[in-house]
Amino acid sequence: MSISSPFVVLSLDDAYELSFGALLRNGLDERHAAAVARSVVSGQRDECHSHGLYRLLVCVKGLRTGKINGNANPEVFDMSAALTRVDAHGGFSQVAFDVGAEHLVRKAKEVGIAALAINNCFHFSALWQEVEQLAELGVAAMAMTPSHSYVAPAGGNKPLLGTNPFAFGWPRPGKFPFVFDFATSMVARGDIELAKRKKEKIPFGWAVDQDGMPTDDPGRALEGAMLTFGSYKGSALSTMIELLAGPLLGDLMSFESQQVDAGAAITPFHGELLVAFSPQGFVGSKDGATANHERAESLFNAIVDQGARLPSQRRFEARAKAIREGVRIDRALYEDIRKL
Amino acid sequence: MSISSPFVVLSLDDAYELSFGALLRNGLDERHAAAVARSVVSGQRDECHSHGLYRLLVCVKGLRTGKINGNANPEVFDMSAALTRVDAHGGFSQVAFDVGAEHLVRKAKEVGIAALAINNCFHFSALWQEVEQLAELGVAAMAMTPSHSYVAPAGGNKPLLGTNPFAFGWPRPGKFPFVFDFATSMVARGDIELAKRKKEKIPFGWAVDQDGMPTDDPGRALEGAMLTFGSYKGSALSTMIELLAGPLLGDLMSFESQQVDAGAAITPFHGELLVAFSPQGFVGSKDGATANHERAESLFNAIVDQGARLPSQRRFEARAKAIREGVRIDRALYEDIRKL
Repeated sequence: MSISSPFVVLSLDDAYELSFGALLRNGLDERHAAAVARSVVSGQRDECHSHGLYRLLVCVKGLRTGKINGNANPEVFDMSAALTRVDAHGGFSQVAFDVGAEHLVRKAKEVGIAALAINNCFHFSALWQEVEQLAELGVAAMAMTPSHSYVAPAGGNKPLLGTNPFAFGWPRPGKFPFVFDFATSMVARGDIELAKRKKEKIPFGWAVDQDGMPTDDPGRALEGAMLTFGSYKGSALSTMIELLAGPLLGDLMSFESQQVDAGAAITPFHGELLVAFSPQGFVGSKDGATANHERAESLFNAIVDQGARLPSQRRFEARAKAIREGVRIDRALYEDIRKL
Repeated sequence: MSISSPFVVLSLDDAYELSFGALLRNGLDERHAAAVARSVVSGQRDECHSHGLYRLLVCVKGLRTGKINGNANPEVFDMSAALTRVDAHGGFSQVAFDVGAEHLVRKAKEVGIAALAINNCFHFSALWQEVEQLAELGVAAMAMTPSHSYVAPAGGNKPLLGTNPFAFGWPRPGKFPFVFDFATSMVARGDIELAKRKKEKIPFGWAVDQDGMPTDDPGRALEGAMLTFGSYKGSALSTMIELLAGPLLGDLMSFESQQVDAGAAITPFHGELLVAFSPQGFVGSKDGATANHERAESLFNAIVDQGARLPSQRRFEARAKAIREGVRIDRALYEDIRKL
């Protein structure tokens, strides 16, 4: 650990211990503290800073409202040969995911496709962590979740939809999986908050003001509504996510989660849907699956060979570096976390 | 039917008879001719002209190459409690979908989620037709399929991905379902071909030329590569569709379908993936499903109340008009179809 620089360099183990301790001191039981610490360290390691150690501050703020259940015991409901539901009972999503993932993977391998609903969870982690984990267990997987209502549907100008992320993972035996994870809003809400703090303009197209007019002022954007990516197509996808990870699961949509939040401004309370596919389900044999994996590799090669990148390439490069050299965080953030 | 105008107005029944007859005369058996005729009349009725009666010319061109099997007998494989595979045996997709849909819906209702693979089909129909039909049978559904390799991945400049449509339907008891269907390319290839025919420029951002430079020249765009919608997010979705409706099903990706086409320039030969969700699967009861349908309606109301439109609103309006007044087609197209 360096001493006098404005940064602190931590090994991944040290970053984990720092995170785990702060969470334990603030009301998470050991199981939740471990799962959340793993999650924020993964974000930091992969240089997804908005899902890195910085999130500990947001977690603890949420825990101090008393709304989040720090020792919730997620309950598994075996709904059918293909469906599993985990009630997170008001805890953070990570333990509920860990508990549900094994059922999801087992059922996907048994009947070819399976779905996992996580209900009643507080959710802030990046979905790539989950689909990557599922891909490493040998299944292709989608994940989606609503958030808070910050985003206008295409053609509208009032916040209604969430920033609603969609993630997908595809297993690549012997390699990092193919993984992507994107918000269906143009940008993350944090990007607009950051511009406001730095007194910078934002590009037109990210948001509209309260009157529905295009704005480059981040303050007016935050009072108005964010826009979806890809115009009406992104808006349609975002609406699908509201439906599939909301009413389909008997859980809250973004505007309902916002109402539950009631101004506390903590992380969304809602559900998440995961769908997993077995690579052997339709082809019926391990040999068939192997041949299909090889064909998928030919697509990845054709992408990379023309100078394009696979979606998570930068993240995996950051990971390799962090494993070698540790992660670097602002000294101020480090001190803030130690004081939590 | 009007006589001297440049247009012909046909009732939906007359449009069907015209289409059915043309397809029968060109080598489709009665079952395939009926399914394809229903499909093109639906497109015409909803004013999706690129999937309307005009498509009969494209179908017949394909049939005349001898590559498409006009009396294929789709074969159903019951893969598991949740999966069904239909081998279209080289015929058009519509009959294979009709044969598979009942299995897909039944299994989704039994185990909560189910998937249908259609293999070895020639495909040109709009996916909204299928997800709408599934939603009317009471399940939420996704559909996706690759096409021919016309589109560059984000960051690249060579055609590799298809225009890869993604469609979704959500049942609304007593109303038209919530349905969307979009290409993951910026626009349909037909839009660029049309601009070339009319000697018009296209907007920058639709495509790049053979050197990977942005172009507004439709001819150079067609020789180069189309771009995905929503930059790297659309590119990621398109890649997911290649994988899930390609290798996962043991079927062809867009660049492989292009190779099979070998310059014949007919409709893609490949697979399609459909995933269906029962609204009762996770909530376990009909009452729960009803409550969730009502919450979904509150989302649709909030979209419409702020002046935005639901994705298929224009299409359903066109349909109501077509049912009352019939469909209007160019006289030249009408004569061309009669001569087929």
